[in-house]
Amino acid sequence: MKLISYRDSEGDTVGVVDGNGVINVGRASNVEGQTLRQILANDALDDTRAYAEGRAADSTLDDVTLLPLIPDPEKIICVGLNYASHAAEGGNKLPEFPSLFPRYSNTQVGHGQPMIRPKVSETFDFEGEFAFVIGKTGRHVKKADAYNHVAGYSCYNDGSIREWQRHTTQYLPGKNFVGTGGFGPWLVTTDEIPDPSVLSIQTRLNGEVMQQGTLDDLIFDVPTLVEYISAFTELVPGDVISTGTTSGVGAYRTPPVWMKAGDTIEVEVSQIGVLRNPIIDE
Amino acid sequence: MKLISYRDSEGDTVGVVDGNGVINVGRASNVEGQTLRQILANDALDDTRAYAEGRAADSTLDDVTLLPLIPDPEKIICVGLNYASHAAEGGNKLPEFPSLFPRYSNTQVGHGQPMIRPKVSETFDFEGEFAFVIGKTGRHVKKADAYNHVAGYSCYNDGSIREWQRHTTQYLPGKNFVGTGGFGPWLVTTDEIPDPSVLSIQTRLNGEVMQQGTLDDLIFDVPTLVEYISAFTELVPGDVISTGTTSGVGAYRTPPVWMKAGDTIEVEVSQIGVLRNPIIDE
Repeated sequence: MKLISYRDSEGDTVGVVDGNGVINVGRASNVEGQTLRQILANDALDDTRAYAEGRAADSTLDDVTLLPLIPDPEKIICVGLNYASHAAEGGNKLPEFPSLFPRYSNTQVGHGQPMIRPKVSETFDFEGEFAFVIGKTGRHVKKADAYNHVAGYSCYNDGSIREWQRHTTQYLPGKNFVGTGGFGPWLVTTDEIPDPSVLSIQTRLNGEVMQQGTLDDLIFDVPTLVEYISAFTELVPGDVISTGTTSGVGAYRTPPVWMKAGDTIEVEVSQIGVLRNPIIDE
Repeated sequence: MKLISYRDSEGDTVGVVDGNGVINVGRASNVEGQTLRQILANDALDDTRAYAEGRAADSTLDDVTLLPLIPDPEKIICVGLNYASHAAEGGNKLPEFPSLFPRYSNTQVGHGQPMIRPKVSETFDFEGEFAFVIGKTGRHVKKADAYNHVAGYSCYNDGSIREWQRHTTQYLPGKNFVGTGGFGPWLVTTDEIPDPSVLSIQTRLNGEVMQQGTLDDLIFDVPTLVEYISAFTELVPGDVISTGTTSGVGAYRTPPVWMKAGDTIEVEVSQIGVLRNPIIDE
């Protein structure tokens, strides 16, 4: 099942995608929850599936505005340096622990919405990533149980202002400019992808392949991240964990490549789809 | 005016503190908002003051359970290495930019509530801090206008698991164990403290002074932080910025001092008050 958060003339809601059709579930009385985060918190994916099964579409994908997949997560935790190839590119040794930093909700835009290059810096870089969304509350989750806490998968563009990322040792400022991150287009539930390590990921700038990798190159895989993160925090439904980017980012190219107004950036994960965003100036 | 977030038999609410009395304002129809974050978002501090003026207390401080001052902020941004003396203690040069990292809401406890030493590490350290709370939405706020975006001040204990803070360059894990941070007891509105640089701060462990400083030692003061942070993110009412800690943390003592079950940790800021928390084991 593919789920989207979207906006139509009646407001913000949730839908199930079937081909080019969108079946509204956020306003269905049979489905408990009006946002995707609420549907996950209410453990209502089965009800959602049953409701959408065989039902005619309410809209088409072209008629709606996609929102960030989870517009209002309690936490967005991003992983740095999680591909062996990207760690090597930055001159870093293979890490013993995952490097974690936050994004705030207001940094996110949905598929098709513009990502915003801020006025204070030109160093706007892409980071194509594979992200997972938590479906079940958990603390001290063990690796063997980790997939039971994951609702599904999506694409993330962890857009970064490199200059501000390097102001200090802490990445927070460079990762938290308003509207610099893409998240979507949809959630593919875990039943459709039993083992994400077989997936591949590609980032394209104006159609040119900039990053390419396979998820079996992840230093810290989904179960390892769930175990490590839940050792300190309680994961709750709707929490987003973006697993890090592969080699090929703009900052390490010679000369560096920065995104600018008029560009189009795409992140594609196999079996999930393409997250596409135009770039505009603030 | 002093405001608290608190719990009584009817649920979670907001009050104005007058001596030992608490005037409930979260359930008052004259005050728009049921949480402190909502009251700030609704620009209802003047209505709150007018409502509470001369009104008899509904409870005493002893009868209620204090919550984290803002239980549900959109953002909690903490500053590292912001006192010249603490930067020197860690062997760091004076920084050019503020070092920023996040806390999540579930790390916070109110005044009087236990701070929790997790089971995975003994390295539970205190960081007594002066925090400010945003009262007005703003992006690209200039220093000269910064105080217009601040609602008031409080004490913060940025409790840290040093071992996990040092797993990688990023502080997030060590700063985000559940229930490791104290926030309160109350918000003192800015009209009572026109210039926070005159304040002093002290942290006491079981009554013994461990940290001591004055806010004129801050490398990045309140206006500088508001300008820098709002350059990348939109600050919204209820956002919390904790301004960093002074020298004297447990980690840099010989031998190191870690908080353990049965301890009491206090953070006192002059003209604000004392944030006191007992320590318990997870």
